[in-house]
Amino acid sequence: MDALHALTVGDVLREHRRSYPGRTAVVDGDVRLTWPELDDRVNRLANALDRVLGCGAGDRILWLGQNSFRVLECLGAAAKLGAMLCPANWRSSAEELAFVIEDLDPALVVWQEAEIGDTVRAARALLPAGVGPGPAGWRQHDAGGDPTDAGDPTGRGAPPPDSYEALLADPVTDATDALPHPCTDPDTPLLLLYTAAFAGRPSAAMLSHRAILAQDMVMGMMQEISNQYVYLNSGPLFHVATFMTTLATFHFGGTNVFTPRVQAEELCRLIETERCTGAFLQGPTIKEMTLLAEEHPYDLSSLRAFPGHPRWNALVTPDTSPWARNPTGFGQTECMGMLTLDAWGLGSIGSAGRPHPLTRVRIVDPEGAEVPDGETGEIVASGPTIHSGYWNRPDLTAERLRDGWHHTNDLGRREADGSITFVGPRTRIIKSAAENIYPAEVEACIRLHPGVADVAVIGVPDPTWTQSVKAIVVRRPTDPGDEPVTAEAIVEHCRTSIASYKKPRLVEFVDELPRQGWAVDYDALDAAFGGGGYPGSG
Amino acid sequence: MDALHALTVGDVLREHRRSYPGRTAVVDGDVRLTWPELDDRVNRLANALDRVLGCGAGDRILWLGQNSFRVLECLGAAAKLGAMLCPANWRSSAEELAFVIEDLDPALVVWQEAEIGDTVRAARALLPAGVGPGPAGWRQHDAGGDPTDAGDPTGRGAPPPDSYEALLADPVTDATDALPHPCTDPDTPLLLLYTAAFAGRPSAAMLSHRAILAQDMVMGMMQEISNQYVYLNSGPLFHVATFMTTLATFHFGGTNVFTPRVQAEELCRLIETERCTGAFLQGPTIKEMTLLAEEHPYDLSSLRAFPGHPRWNALVTPDTSPWARNPTGFGQTECMGMLTLDAWGLGSIGSAGRPHPLTRVRIVDPEGAEVPDGETGEIVASGPTIHSGYWNRPDLTAERLRDGWHHTNDLGRREADGSITFVGPRTRIIKSAAENIYPAEVEACIRLHPGVADVAVIGVPDPTWTQSVKAIVVRRPTDPGDEPVTAEAIVEHCRTSIASYKKPRLVEFVDELPRQGWAVDYDALDAAFGGGGYPGSG
Repeated sequence: MDALHALTVGDVLREHRRSYPGRTAVVDGDVRLTWPELDDRVNRLANALDRVLGCGAGDRILWLGQNSFRVLECLGAAAKLGAMLCPANWRSSAEELAFVIEDLDPALVVWQEAEIGDTVRAARALLPAGVGPGPAGWRQHDAGGDPTDAGDPTGRGAPPPDSYEALLADPVTDATDALPHPCTDPDTPLLLLYTAAFAGRPSAAMLSHRAILAQDMVMGMMQEISNQYVYLNSGPLFHVATFMTTLATFHFGGTNVFTPRVQAEELCRLIETERCTGAFLQGPTIKEMTLLAEEHPYDLSSLRAFPGHPRWNALVTPDTSPWARNPTGFGQTECMGMLTLDAWGLGSIGSAGRPHPLTRVRIVDPEGAEVPDGETGEIVASGPTIHSGYWNRPDLTAERLRDGWHHTNDLGRREADGSITFVGPRTRIIKSAAENIYPAEVEACIRLHPGVADVAVIGVPDPTWTQSVKAIVVRRPTDPGDEPVTAEAIVEHCRTSIASYKKPRLVEFVDELPRQGWAVDYDALDAAFGGGGYPGSG
Repeated sequence: MDALHALTVGDVLREHRRSYPGRTAVVDGDVRLTWPELDDRVNRLANALDRVLGCGAGDRILWLGQNSFRVLECLGAAAKLGAMLCPANWRSSAEELAFVIEDLDPALVVWQEAEIGDTVRAARALLPAGVGPGPAGWRQHDAGGDPTDAGDPTGRGAPPPDSYEALLADPVTDATDALPHPCTDPDTPLLLLYTAAFAGRPSAAMLSHRAILAQDMVMGMMQEISNQYVYLNSGPLFHVATFMTTLATFHFGGTNVFTPRVQAEELCRLIETERCTGAFLQGPTIKEMTLLAEEHPYDLSSLRAFPGHPRWNALVTPDTSPWARNPTGFGQTECMGMLTLDAWGLGSIGSAGRPHPLTRVRIVDPEGAEVPDGETGEIVASGPTIHSGYWNRPDLTAERLRDGWHHTNDLGRREADGSITFVGPRTRIIKSAAENIYPAEVEACIRLHPGVADVAVIGVPDPTWTQSVKAIVVRRPTDPGDEPVTAEAIVEHCRTSIASYKKPRLVEFVDELPRQGWAVDYDALDAAFGGGGYPGSG
């Protein structure tokens, strides 16, 4: 990539300090930084990483804390250095954090005392000798010495040694933008987000500058984000659903307001005082905020919110953005958030809408060939918003990023109008004669039967057909006098809804499906109900 | 660029045939093509270019005609092949067209009989032997055999030999998307647009897939373009101001409606029948359409238009997009349209707003160093929307694309709020003592004086200061009894408005400035008023 046509996340910060010199970039407690002030602190951090910790291109920065403006500072410094930032899940156990530290081998760990200090210390104690950064690379970010006077990067009072603020105040650092090896390649990975566990352990998707900036344009358009957007970072920053809006707000020169965690009263206060226009809010929090705003006259009218309960609607401004008009679609961390959307009111047969303007999407069979419309297959995607692989997982990366496509491990179907339906996760494939059958597709069909409460589908070895389909069904409780659903009824329901070869040959009824956490335990089902003989299982 | 993260204009077409199978891509006279129909024809053209004309990566296709859906077909085929399309100015003289043909050396010339057939033939006769494509590479597009039945690519009646339609109907071609060397690199130049003449001849800026798709996102957001946008191509497609909206409409899956040229009654008819939501319209046409719609009850209510005359406003729907709310900014063909915008209601001191989210902009001195805010310098830009150089002009490319920046040859100023003011074209620089003085800046200041009708500023050799500034002024006619503006008043006006060293030392009055076309003839002024000694002039 030639430098003339490149744009990095560091470049965005460089632009904003010039274009928005007096506008507020971040708000967090009593910290308020303009774009030049934020960029100065990012430069201090980048220089300190380079000069104090020897951290540069390809190195990792790990954030072990709640939401903070310093997450954006770490991102900005990583962007300028060509390094990567991983905001980890602060709700993790000590063992989980120790796994992440060992997996990432970060040059800098920024950690937080409040709420999780003991867990961080326990994780640190679990690390094998020599794993993780040296003592200078462990920096507490909530150690005092906060930059409450935004013009004074060292803040009020001297920061304690080994704190994050002490790193920025180190005499060897300064606020210049001149780094020995600045990152100019937008294809450099920048953001690491841990995602669903495969083979028993989570893996971090690597998202490049290009992926972030491309997705910003899509979400900016869908959410109508502008230089006047004020985003309340009230969802977790270790999750793409929150972070994709944080980054779009950053990209368009808006204001990011941070709060460490979800606390309804504080959210009301922040929306009122900062005139927030957007926030990441879920149902229970909205309910709590509605009640609070009726006791205390919080002014939430700046907030553009999805329509909900009439009492909530009366407090906020209805969001009329394309996204709010139909907030459905299909997304993944590996796609930097949304991959398909149902936008602009066109409507779609498929539940997931259509691919956004910066992606390519196909529905393919296990051999990678596109399946006909109406057939279920794996959703694969390519384009600038797609991740660059999984950190430290070459085999998984090769498996998921093959033949020029990211394989989402999720199943979908292209409908007659070109839109896409999300069918379910692609777990195992059942092979019956020459046909591939996805358990998720058969489960989705059976689940539509009114007599069914829950279902899992497995394959059992079949001497003639390789495997045959077996459904393990939890019946829905019936009213007295009603007949419970029969195996025959379920088979017949499938025969009329999906291709006949996909219908179960066998149906068994249980009171409850075995689960590990939320997920059905298919291995336990196979053991109990004779499953096996899956393709590729040897 | 790895294929996984690439997105080309050809890919957009491949997506749309899947996502919008039943939606209309183009309308032109009695031709209506869905996305799959358009893509089939594009594939036929691409295969024919490859198999009949040997046209492939890096080759040029020249469009010598008015607006037509076939411009998009040629663009799509060029995109899939890695070739380039140049839509030339159909109002050009035979000599100008001959220059363009010789300059581009196209593999295919698609030409039009209506209105310009004689000019094309005259241009062809002017070509030296061996210049331009062979006979098979000259294809008339309005020769009959039109694809009026969209499902039948050969159209009603056999197309005449050597016509564009005959190329698509050639037995060697077919509608498959498999090309021997498909273009997968978004940095490949795709669109060639001739722009302002330097050194006496126009030069074609090369715009890549990446530049087009990036600018689509910016303009899509600013103009609120979606898959339901219906754009009336009523401005010239050889100009970026029209084409940038055509391309965004194409990218978002909307409908492009083509009309050969501006004809007010036909525009009214098309807006009514196609329910157009956008159009490229200028003042006189709007006036004419307003009068027509009062005589004949055309329904123009689908059109989202900028506010204008109350009678016009009553006919259309007010455009409330960010762009319509403040349609100012600075743009250039070389930047694929707009580079800066005043969007989203933030307001700006500078007349050109702020750089858009996918660009970097600096104001620099002749040595390339950034000038302080408030100082005039050359506007330079970089990022994905910037052109890839000028076709067949290595020296000009090296001069304008140097040090990682595109030098716009235009002057601007960064204001205190970070916004940018467009000052004027950078013509020559006057050197006075150690200072660089841009004539356009001094002219812009003098033009603000109420007694001045027109002005040009030159440098005259000065034994002490290298050069001194001389203003050649056309006075505004005065009412009887009023005093005409004096030289002293003009100098004093400048002294209070711009840095004192920029004020003219000498002012002369003339009745009229010498011009070549629209441009002031500075060489004639130098000859008449003693100009010379410019830096770099030897």
